[in-house]
Amino acid sequence: MNKGYIHIYTGNGKGKTTAAFGLSLRAVCAGKKVYIGQFVKGMKYSEVKAEEYLPNLEIHQFGRSCFIDREPTDEDIKLAQDGFEKCKKIMSNGEYDLVVLDEINIALFFKLLKVEEVIKAINEKASNVELVLTGRYAPQELVDIADLVTEMKEIKHYYQKGVTARKGIES
Amino acid sequence: MNKGYIHIYTGNGKGKTTAAFGLSLRAVCAGKKVYIGQFVKGMKYSEVKAEEYLPNLEIHQFGRSCFIDREPTDEDIKLAQDGFEKCKKIMSNGEYDLVVLDEINIALFFKLLKVEEVIKAINEKASNVELVLTGRYAPQELVDIADLVTEMKEIKHYYQKGVTARKGIES
Repeated sequence: MNKGYIHIYTGNGKGKTTAAFGLSLRAVCAGKKVYIGQFVKGMKYSEVKAEEYLPNLEIHQFGRSCFIDREPTDEDIKLAQDGFEKCKKIMSNGEYDLVVLDEINIALFFKLLKVEEVIKAINEKASNVELVLTGRYAPQELVDIADLVTEMKEIKHYYQKGVTARKGIES
Repeated sequence: MNKGYIHIYTGNGKGKTTAAFGLSLRAVCAGKKVYIGQFVKGMKYSEVKAEEYLPNLEIHQFGRSCFIDREPTDEDIKLAQDGFEKCKKIMSNGEYDLVVLDEINIALFFKLLKVEEVIKAINEKASNVELVLTGRYAPQELVDIADLVTEMKEIKHYYQKGVTARKGIES
């Protein structure tokens, strides 16, 4: 059986979730089954529509919105934890070839989840499952156990010029 | 009319082409038309099948294989230049909302194309066209005129452990 590797996309630059979706698209094209769990996000971004186009792709969201201007509440914690319970099952039953835990690093950074429980779930995952973890601030404990870590580093960004997120590009 | 921005994904890390495909997926989901021109590549990677799943996505390849262990030949130069002529038309006629020039930085690095002609084509593009340039070794002249530049930086890679490219993940 193929060993499933652990990828991390982190850093302050653009392209982390985007790369995870690109990887999902490539995997579906190769006949694989893909599950994407999105932490912290509850917004119906354009990307969520990918389910409509791609067979064997399933997307679930476990959040309400990001915490740019507010503190996470008990409800955010519950949403993340319930979502993670679902992801744990999916990681361990091996039904999906590729599992993306989108923005899980952010969920960890805001203490919605504990890094120990994520490591435990990784250790208990079905061996064939390829796992992708995204989000800024990847904790060192996850970097240590990952097979592949890419930092998306912002060199230049038009948000600096006051451009806001645009439908079909960033959202 | 919306201004189309110029994105660059560069660096030695994983996820450059992958992010461009993720961005293309998101754009198609938002009802946009996407054109992907792949320089240097001629291999029918899984990702090329994305055309079958996504309406409004077109992919053309302008190469044979990468130059890891050989020098580019006149044929490689001709393929790249003919491909770039096609891309120039597509950039200027504004028919596609998002145009990806995949691995164009590599084509420039290997002198299959000249940076001056790429800059000229960018200056002459239809103003609504969002442009994505990918590949290692982005030349400084392109970084200077881009709106958004992300460096994918390799922190850890399993190729270091001797794992080769796997179908549906890297290829």
